[in-house]
Amino acid sequence: MSDPGRALMGVSGLDEMLCGGLIAGSAALLQGAPGTGKTTVGMQFLYEGAAKQDEPGLLVSFEQFPHTLYRDALAHGWDLRGLEQQSKLRIVFTSPQVLVSSLQSPMSPISSAIRELGVKRAVVDSMTHLQTLTRDPVQLRSHYNFLINGLRREGITALLLSEDSGPDFVRSDRGRLAFAVDAVILLRYVEIDSVMQRAIAVLKTRGSDHDKSIRRFEIARGGVVIREAFQGREGLLTGTPRRTR
Amino acid sequence: MSDPGRALMGVSGLDEMLCGGLIAGSAALLQGAPGTGKTTVGMQFLYEGAAKQDEPGLLVSFEQFPHTLYRDALAHGWDLRGLEQQSKLRIVFTSPQVLVSSLQSPMSPISSAIRELGVKRAVVDSMTHLQTLTRDPVQLRSHYNFLINGLRREGITALLLSEDSGPDFVRSDRGRLAFAVDAVILLRYVEIDSVMQRAIAVLKTRGSDHDKSIRRFEIARGGVVIREAFQGREGLLTGTPRRTR
Amino acid sequence: MSDPGRALMGVSGLDEMLCGGLIAGSAALLQGAPGTGKTTVGMQFLYEGAAKQDEPGLLVSFEQFPHTLYRDALAHGWDLRGLEQQSKLRIVFTSPQVLVSSLQSPMSPISSAIRELGVKRAVVDSMTHLQTLTRDPVQLRSHYNFLINGLRREGITALLLSEDSGPDFVRSDRGRLAFAVDAVILLRYVEIDSVMQRAIAVLKTRGSDHDKSIRRFEIARGGVVIREAFQGREGLLTGTPRRTR
Amino acid sequence: MSDPGRALMGVSGLDEMLCGGLIAGSAALLQGAPGTGKTTVGMQFLYEGAAKQDEPGLLVSFEQFPHTLYRDALAHGWDLRGLEQQSKLRIVFTSPQVLVSSLQSPMSPISSAIRELGVKRAVVDSMTHLQTLTRDPVQLRSHYNFLINGLRREGITALLLSEDSGPDFVRSDRGRLAFAVDAVILLRYVEIDSVMQRAIAVLKTRGSDHDKSIRRFEIARGGVVIREAFQGREGLLTGTPRRTR
Amino acid sequence: MSDPGRALMGVSGLDEMLCGGLIAGSAALLQGAPGTGKTTVGMQFLYEGAAKQDEPGLLVSFEQFPHTLYRDALAHGWDLRGLEQQSKLRIVFTSPQVLVSSLQSPMSPISSAIRELGVKRAVVDSMTHLQTLTRDPVQLRSHYNFLINGLRREGITALLLSEDSGPDFVRSDRGRLAFAVDAVILLRYVEIDSVMQRAIAVLKTRGSDHDKSIRRFEIARGGVVIREAFQGREGLLTGTPRRTR
Amino acid sequence: MSDPGRALMGVSGLDEMLCGGLIAGSAALLQGAPGTGKTTVGMQFLYEGAAKQDEPGLLVSFEQFPHTLYRDALAHGWDLRGLEQQSKLRIVFTSPQVLVSSLQSPMSPISSAIRELGVKRAVVDSMTHLQTLTRDPVQLRSHYNFLINGLRREGITALLLSEDSGPDFVRSDRGRLAFAVDAVILLRYVEIDSVMQRAIAVLKTRGSDHDKSIRRFEIARGGVVIREAFQGREGLLTGTPRRTR
Repeated sequence: MSDPGRALMGVSGLDEMLCGGLIAGSAALLQGAPGTGKTTVGMQFLYEGAAKQDEPGLLVSFEQFPHTLYRDALAHGWDLRGLEQQSKLRIVFTSPQVLVSSLQSPMSPISSAIRELGVKRAVVDSMTHLQTLTRDPVQLRSHYNFLINGLRREGITALLLSEDSGPDFVRSDRGRLAFAVDAVILLRYVEIDSVMQRAIAVLKTRGSDHDKSIRRFEIARGGVVIREAFQGREGLLTGTPRRTR
Repeated sequence: MSDPGRALMGVSGLDEMLCGGLIAGSAALLQGAPGTGKTTVGMQFLYEGAAKQDEPGLLVSFEQFPHTLYRDALAHGWDLRGLEQQSKLRIVFTSPQVLVSSLQSPMSPISSAIRELGVKRAVVDSMTHLQTLTRDPVQLRSHYNFLINGLRREGITALLLSEDSGPDFVRSDRGRLAFAVDAVILLRYVEIDSVMQRAIAVLKTRGSDHDKSIRRFEIARGGVVIREAFQGREGLLTGTPRRTR
Repeated sequence: MSDPGRALMGVSGLDEMLCGGLIAGSAALLQGAPGTGKTTVGMQFLYEGAAKQDEPGLLVSFEQFPHTLYRDALAHGWDLRGLEQQSKLRIVFTSPQVLVSSLQSPMSPISSAIRELGVKRAVVDSMTHLQTLTRDPVQLRSHYNFLINGLRREGITALLLSEDSGPDFVRSDRGRLAFAVDAVILLRYVEIDSVMQRAIAVLKTRGSDHDKSIRRFEIARGGVVIREAFQGREGLLTGTPRRTR
Repeated sequence: MSDPGRALMGVSGLDEMLCGGLIAGSAALLQGAPGTGKTTVGMQFLYEGAAKQDEPGLLVSFEQFPHTLYRDALAHGWDLRGLEQQSKLRIVFTSPQVLVSSLQSPMSPISSAIRELGVKRAVVDSMTHLQTLTRDPVQLRSHYNFLINGLRREGITALLLSEDSGPDFVRSDRGRLAFAVDAVILLRYVEIDSVMQRAIAVLKTRGSDHDKSIRRFEIARGGVVIREAFQGREGLLTGTPRRTR
Repeated sequence: MSDPGRALMGVSGLDEMLCGGLIAGSAALLQGAPGTGKTTVGMQFLYEGAAKQDEPGLLVSFEQFPHTLYRDALAHGWDLRGLEQQSKLRIVFTSPQVLVSSLQSPMSPISSAIRELGVKRAVVDSMTHLQTLTRDPVQLRSHYNFLINGLRREGITALLLSEDSGPDFVRSDRGRLAFAVDAVILLRYVEIDSVMQRAIAVLKTRGSDHDKSIRRFEIARGGVVIREAFQGREGLLTGTPRRTR
Repeated sequence: MSDPGRALMGVSGLDEMLCGGLIAGSAALLQGAPGTGKTTVGMQFLYEGAAKQDEPGLLVSFEQFPHTLYRDALAHGWDLRGLEQQSKLRIVFTSPQVLVSSLQSPMSPISSAIRELGVKRAVVDSMTHLQTLTRDPVQLRSHYNFLINGLRREGITALLLSEDSGPDFVRSDRGRLAFAVDAVILLRYVEIDSVMQRAIAVLKTRGSDHDKSIRRFEIARGGVVIREAFQGREGLLTGTPRRTR
């Protein structure tokens, strides 16, 4: 049985890195380059909640159509459409503007869905699109906080996806989202022995301990699987590490 | 026989890296520095479809005149003009503005061509020119999505070429195209032993596995040929790798 | 017994690095990346003062709600709510605008709290939010100085938290806060042997000596604990050090 | 006898690198830092055409006066003034504005010269000055294409000189000229054993193969001479290579 | 006895590095990161002049209150307040605007002080604040020159402090102050063996020779003390040097 | 006896690097960081001409007063004031604006001086100040060319000093002066064995050969003296070289 204060992510190895999953009701940032598996982890997290932990989920997508998500999830063995029909999941394809105004209105479809399903988990794919709301870093951070606090208030465990455009993990984030969330998980490409491997690191977990190692992971049928920590390399987070002398 | 859910690219070695070609109906980004062979791969992909797989193609070019493309393709043994005469291919020399408005109008020449030929494959050479449509990154991404979703809706497998101006593979893309597409393929120069070699890496394939190695490739008569993975070097993607200790 | 001219931080090892704690009445900058423990050290510093040194404290937070701080502190064994009830601590959730105008008015709630509790220690979480007051670096520095001088005038020992967004420790600070304060403490991530370790360095202590070594630290139950100095690495402050030959 | 489909450059070793010279009627970019010999190669190319291959040439210069060019060419043994008198060469000292408008008018002196001399080769020294025509990258690329397509239409083999201001070979080119041309040749300084050596690399040749090695070259009496490939160094194109282990 | 053409700085080891102190009547730039001891050296220089060399001093401070300076100086054993009472020193807390206009008016308090005390040494803490006068680099340099020439005209030996925000020593100085002064002294942090050491280098001394070595220094009771040159390291001025092979 | 087509610089070792001095009537760029000796070389070049080669000189200074130049030159044994009195030298302290307009007017003091003295050598200290004339890179380059061509037309050998603000030798030059001149000489700081050494390299000499090695130099009494080439280091031009393996 899982810890009631924790939301198991259902990602083999990642829950262990987080010492038992995300802290229930907290907001975690999942940041990664294109193709590192952000959306896969997001769906895995929601599937674990809806299908196994009795925690209904909400997936807010700004760019991918629901049918694409259904198809990609099915390839991993997750029947998201079925979960929707059982009212254990709701996929909302919307815009950042609508999301923000919806959260301000208890009658909006998103607010209703949260209430009716009793949503316990949410994924936003991706927070980067909130940058379209404003060019002002201060207002952007305010939007981040509004969203995060709104989710916290509902007791929802949130996984916020973010597009990572460079080696420095907060460089491109005008709103400094990494400071506003409770946890930060990084997904990275790492070139080792002429192979583009994938690396995961948990950087921050407010109110909890976590595994500090940088681990290899794979996207397999059934979702993301965390593997062993890297060995004998320096500068993994630069993306082009060197063999340690 | 090829997998019906896949569009073979016809590039020796690349279809294997993609585990059977591009996923039919998906949009792939092919990003490369000048001279790395983007247009050659684009023509190879269309020729494979039109001449061998019974998948008519559309080539949208913003800068190269059709006669130049005919000539360069012929040097590889691909008779694009002949395929056009057989209504298996259509080469359109146009502007980004016209392309975008054409896709909005079912009566436009491009929309008609797609319908009449039953286009199954498309190449856009290059997406970088879409940056001329707007200076606003949000609008640019919206243009990207409009184009990609339009092609997906038609069930067209799209290869979107993009000009790479630096070592960091998404740095110069204001619209973050790499996040919007289903697959990302990189073409790079790599300086090894005082020779400018060419490297290819598949970075992302939504809904499929792929070869993660960074491989050498050559542009030969007959088109691009993928060779062995590099060996004994660190930092290939920086362009100036070092021998691994 | 502690030095009357010093404010013990209560962080095991850090007071030794500072040769006896912060200089009483001075302003120290604590700069760190997300998740490096800035807020934890801030609460530890206030708890030490309020619960053990009879030095009432003020915590100004711009982003974290008091109940989150209560909860996170309790996890370390610090009952901040209890200290508030004993008038040994005041947590103020406010905006940078209100903070600045409050300090100008002796009747404001913040000024009253400082007077009524006899505040001797203050934490501002975080100074980075003061950047929302103005885009002009000169005005920003003026706000910094106004705040720092106001606290100094009251004889308050201040710990000013700051969000660190890159490897160069003053690069992102338009107002050059590090030059305006009396002491600078850095918290950093350092990748060593595929593990994200945490490093602390004291860079500047006006009017005092300090330990110049770069030390490992951990966030444990009970707060931050400083460990041994790193060994055999070059470039720790770059975040991706190398083994020294 | 030379290949009729090729324009021999007359630069010892470079024609071999290009597998027989530039493709007749194509446009090549020759990019280099100050003093790497761009103008020398340009004059050598025109002299080879006018004096040896019966291919009259046009040299468009935006900054160097004809008498300076005569003098510098004579030092290499090339009598440009004599070739002008024999109507085998025309040197035009003009501005980018005049060049662009001249190409639009068949009666302009430049258009007349092209027609009267039967110009087969052209050098533009340098394309960088076209940046003065506009600040808009899109318009700039349009000017590049207008010029390149105009020369291609006349069947002229063009060598377009470009000022290289940094180690990344397309970084400073707002109009991304390297993507618009048929071939790219780089001239670089390379620091080896405390000596500033010169390096040449052919990066791109549309419709042809080329030597991929990075070679040393010298500017001697008689013009540029290509030497052996570099050996035992990594990172030549950074300008400060290291000895390979 | 000291050289009459020289102003001894009173910093043990630094006068030797300067071959006998600053040249009398010249302007030297002292540039350093926060906490490297700029103000300490400034006070040491003025104390040496006022208390030992019969050269009255002027300290212009834009940010630190006199009482803070008194206190910090006393900790080193320098009684600045006493020197003020003996009319051997004047500490002026002012703004860049007032400083600049004061120098234009012979009746201003600063001009009067210079005349009445017979000021021979001046410290400006710091020149970086002059950047608040204008955003125009040309006007800024003009302000620099106005100040420097005004001090030179009075025969005053000036030590101009400057805040260093990065590894490249003139990068952040819009007005290129280092070119306008007669001497440049750098104070730096250098990470060696996991310790933040301090380094000093004299870069430029117009009209004099100087020690070119990069030396370690410490801030001790009694002020800054220069130690031995570093050994066996490359890249000291990057801040993160490496052991030389 | 010196080559009549050459202007000996009088800098021991540099004339050999230039294969006999600057080409008479050409314009050379001397670029260096603060304190590397640009002005010293400039005065040395003028002294050699005026006192030894019967080539009267003109020194245009935008920032240093003549009396400072007299004093600094005298310290090297060069009596510039005496040469002025013999009408072999003219030092003009002026502004970029006046310089540019003077060259357009044959009656201006500068034009008169050139005519009356029969000026054969000129130094401009420094070209960087011409950046104050305009923010437009195109106009700036036009000013550069106007000045350079004006001096060439008079047959004057010009040494144009330029302030170097970074490791990349043309990065900060909006007007790309290095492309407009006939020769480029670099002065640099190089950190070797914890010592700030000075390095000189000749990068470009239009119409002549030159020594390609990077050499150490010193500023001694009597002026700049070129020493041996560096040995066993890589990356000298980065300023922080490494020992070659």
